[in-house]
Amino acid sequence: MNLKEYVRDIPDFPTEGILFRDITPMLKDPTAFGYAVDALAERYSQRPFDIVVAIEARGFLFGSPLAYRLGKPLIPARKQGKLPYESIRADYSLEYGTNVVEMHTDAVAPGASVLIVDDLLATGGTLAATARLVELAGGRVEEVALVIELEDLGGRKRLRGYDVFSLVQY
Amino acid sequence: MNLKEYVRDIPDFPTEGILFRDITPMLKDPTAFGYAVDALAERYSQRPFDIVVAIEARGFLFGSPLAYRLGKPLIPARKQGKLPYESIRADYSLEYGTNVVEMHTDAVAPGASVLIVDDLLATGGTLAATARLVELAGGRVEEVALVIELEDLGGRKRLRGYDVFSLVQY
Repeated sequence: MNLKEYVRDIPDFPTEGILFRDITPMLKDPTAFGYAVDALAERYSQRPFDIVVAIEARGFLFGSPLAYRLGKPLIPARKQGKLPYESIRADYSLEYGTNVVEMHTDAVAPGASVLIVDDLLATGGTLAATARLVELAGGRVEEVALVIELEDLGGRKRLRGYDVFSLVQY
Repeated sequence: MNLKEYVRDIPDFPTEGILFRDITPMLKDPTAFGYAVDALAERYSQRPFDIVVAIEARGFLFGSPLAYRLGKPLIPARKQGKLPYESIRADYSLEYGTNVVEMHTDAVAPGASVLIVDDLLATGGTLAATARLVELAGGRVEEVALVIELEDLGGRKRLRGYDVFSLVQY
């Protein structure tokens, strides 16, 4: 199945000059969405990893059914101030200013092997910060799993040292 | 299974006087999380509904595996400005000010029967606004499905006219 047929190009979103890759047509098509989740599940079903960390908000859409399908713990990595319990945080730089991703302190046990899931790899800032959070908690990143990878934005460079896998590349 | 054992009480979050029901222990336990998703899947597997609408962000965590499991289209209802394509919006009032929920114009076809999914029913503002969006698109709300319902906050009153189902009540 060619998943690209279920990705819609939206010019100038969220700001002028950005070509946004919209995954909502994929979500809306049960065959395409099931194919994407199953493709990730197949890849990771034979690997001895412990935890799925899914990144707010679109990462929840793929990380959650993957954790459900594989019977793995599901840990949300969230934007600042969203998690109610004691949390750890990592900053990452944007073009202007910085952003924050947080994870509960009891989410990843020391020694745990973690699969980080998001919908899309662009510059990799959120993903690199989430990987640092996993390591701050004493865990190890098994792989970073994505539905879409935008190859020209340098995300893999920012994630150097981690294994990165994507279903669709642009 | 008593799902309440996997809900953590957090006093004074997000503001003083609020007792927050934290579902992250449920997400972290594959048996509990699988039980919750399967309980919803069982309830809706025999009903002739067309679409799952999941509400950002925690609603994604339950709506997505439910749509995956049942092979139904998954539609995200999101906060203002997050959806890239042409959208419709509904406002709802908070204690101070108003908030907005949005849905793509091509998300719900006229005549479609929709299951709205969120993690928790409190005052019901977001859910009532999402139900209005579904109807604005020409759809019909089959039911509103929740993991947790806070019975004292009047959510069912705000959702009068809709069927509401929850797995756990406080």
